[in-house]
Amino acid sequence: MKINENFLKLKENYLFAEVGRKTAAYRAAHPGKEVIRLSIGDVTLPLAPAVIAAMHKAVDDMAKKETFKGYGPDATCYGYDALLDSILSSYARKGVQLGKGEVFISDGAKSDCGNILDIFSAENTVLIPDPVYPAYFDVNVMAGRNIVFAAATEENGFLPMPDESVKADIIYICSPNNPTGAAYTKTQLKAWVDYAKEQNAVILYDAAYEYFVTDESLARSIYQVEGAKEVAIELCSYSKTAGFTGVRCGYTVVPEALVRGGVSLNRLWARRQSTKFNGTSYITQMGAAAVFTEEGERQIDENINYYRNNAKIITSCLDGLGVSYTGGKNSPYIWMTCPHGMTSWEFFDYLLENANVVGTPGSGFGNNGEGFFRLTAFGTEENTREACARMTALLKN
Amino acid sequence: MKINENFLKLKENYLFAEVGRKTAAYRAAHPGKEVIRLSIGDVTLPLAPAVIAAMHKAVDDMAKKETFKGYGPDATCYGYDALLDSILSSYARKGVQLGKGEVFISDGAKSDCGNILDIFSAENTVLIPDPVYPAYFDVNVMAGRNIVFAAATEENGFLPMPDESVKADIIYICSPNNPTGAAYTKTQLKAWVDYAKEQNAVILYDAAYEYFVTDESLARSIYQVEGAKEVAIELCSYSKTAGFTGVRCGYTVVPEALVRGGVSLNRLWARRQSTKFNGTSYITQMGAAAVFTEEGERQIDENINYYRNNAKIITSCLDGLGVSYTGGKNSPYIWMTCPHGMTSWEFFDYLLENANVVGTPGSGFGNNGEGFFRLTAFGTEENTREACARMTALLKN
Repeated sequence: MKINENFLKLKENYLFAEVGRKTAAYRAAHPGKEVIRLSIGDVTLPLAPAVIAAMHKAVDDMAKKETFKGYGPDATCYGYDALLDSILSSYARKGVQLGKGEVFISDGAKSDCGNILDIFSAENTVLIPDPVYPAYFDVNVMAGRNIVFAAATEENGFLPMPDESVKADIIYICSPNNPTGAAYTKTQLKAWVDYAKEQNAVILYDAAYEYFVTDESLARSIYQVEGAKEVAIELCSYSKTAGFTGVRCGYTVVPEALVRGGVSLNRLWARRQSTKFNGTSYITQMGAAAVFTEEGERQIDENINYYRNNAKIITSCLDGLGVSYTGGKNSPYIWMTCPHGMTSWEFFDYLLENANVVGTPGSGFGNNGEGFFRLTAFGTEENTREACARMTALLKN
Repeated sequence: MKINENFLKLKENYLFAEVGRKTAAYRAAHPGKEVIRLSIGDVTLPLAPAVIAAMHKAVDDMAKKETFKGYGPDATCYGYDALLDSILSSYARKGVQLGKGEVFISDGAKSDCGNILDIFSAENTVLIPDPVYPAYFDVNVMAGRNIVFAAATEENGFLPMPDESVKADIIYICSPNNPTGAAYTKTQLKAWVDYAKEQNAVILYDAAYEYFVTDESLARSIYQVEGAKEVAIELCSYSKTAGFTGVRCGYTVVPEALVRGGVSLNRLWARRQSTKFNGTSYITQMGAAAVFTEEGERQIDENINYYRNNAKIITSCLDGLGVSYTGGKNSPYIWMTCPHGMTSWEFFDYLLENANVVGTPGSGFGNNGEGFFRLTAFGTEENTREACARMTALLKN
């Protein structure tokens, strides 16, 4: 038996696991210290009341023979109508018309952004922004694909644009971006759609943070850009929109118009999901279906505004310190320059040891992340204020 | 961009999707007929009260800031302690001692039995019983692996034993078997463990139906066999044990002792899961943790006995008709010989059209399944009795 040798090319620890390990080690060595985590993008507010009510009802359904639900609808990969309909309506409000068979419910965008690769040849070249969410890189290393990078730098506002001289088959775009918080305008995305079309490439568009976008010029879905349905798969998540990090629900859109060499990618993904997946929990799906109701949206808007306010607290703090950053607007992430020329991990250790605040080292997101540091707005307001006070005290000179 | 051409080698429809399509077409053409499905292995009894109570409590936890749960414990692939502890205790009652880091919680055994392949080279040769659960075959075709078969026939009681002349790297075993209902004794499994050791192979042991085993000589876990921890990964599911087909929870055991070429397969799977998966719903995990409590076990035993009784109704019916079969004891599946020399799909159509009963054609599980037909005990007692009455009326001559 041969193992998949590509795994040996991966670094031992996944970024967030390494941050967790270092944090745990510090806590164990300093039991009296109150460590504040503004690192992993985990939410802190409870689920919206509309979601809770829908989930209780779904649990009750599972208790009675008459309403019990086993495997999902025959094509389990598509999910329950109540959820699909609410997703289609939500897209329609963004000006995007989709068909029910184009949306696949899953246990989260993280699963999908790796699993989707099953439908592509291992021989493809993958274009990945640098820095970016590390899973994009790792899942392609595991599959042995050739990887090229699009540099996201201060010079381009952390929004790389297509380079015609670079050949790519699969293109990952995350907007609003994790970790930089930068978000593409519809006009910028149009350039990526055109580039993908020329290259006969497919864009994997991670829209996990779209709900934070308020600026009308920025895209909330790549399908707001003309021609995108012929080149793009969109990965969406309830994690940040509705606090579902512990509930696990996402959805992936594979348009019918996305055809390569006469083969429908929608059919390939349907085949993958019906063979290697068995649907998302009924209870989870019913909770998710409550998110885009009128009541649900009002409640999650409140939550998102709470996090937006946290982002403002952090950016005001950095403004006061004269530290440069991107994000914090149209995004829950703030991407700051490490002070005093420190490297990302140096600043991680410095901040952990001297302010007991945990962030995420920018270098963990790619080489161009070196010298940067990611803070998230997903903490509690109290902790965010306290972390900022500690950072101000530490860095004000 | 190149698609994964291996997908084009798959048949268009996954077996159960094809059964569903044919059934739906018949229903649409004959709206007055009451069709009974004894085909897909979906359960019909509601969740146990202990599970329901635990899930309501978990939903309430998600409603309050103090008890809200986001991403799982740092190594999300391992799951919550309450669930892991209950799984370890359940194993201990079967005489198997496992460590907490050896158990990985997932959204179901179906996901795991495909995803686990990520850690193996595409160059391995896979040994798959024929007939067997079709996903084993399909997921390996998708990855382009060489596949060899172990023939399960009437002659060997549908329990193929190792053939020393066959070289294999990965070996799928499902016991009690889907679809034949046949189950290996511990002594028989020992031969497979020894064979795997000689071949330096890894066994993927699907124990989804272990809870149906009552005969003490039969294995409920491959780890009841000496030496198995060095060669076997075990895939387990709450779907059939506790009616979780719509809830989605399973667990996969990768023992620390499973090392190949100095590489721990436990670490590889941990890396795969922490990169391409983000844990199982907290609510689901809390429900699953209630399954192996004293109260939970008493309640699910009642449900399993209800299905066992259905199996007895079906086997009594077949006994009365003089139709030969395996399974129905230590298994929820009954694997019958198609009457009058019909092929599997001929009998499927015959039974659907003349008795309005849906089963699963044996040939869909492999070439050796031709001429056989799978019925399941997971229906309601009322439907099972009615289906048997119709089959008796149809086949008694």
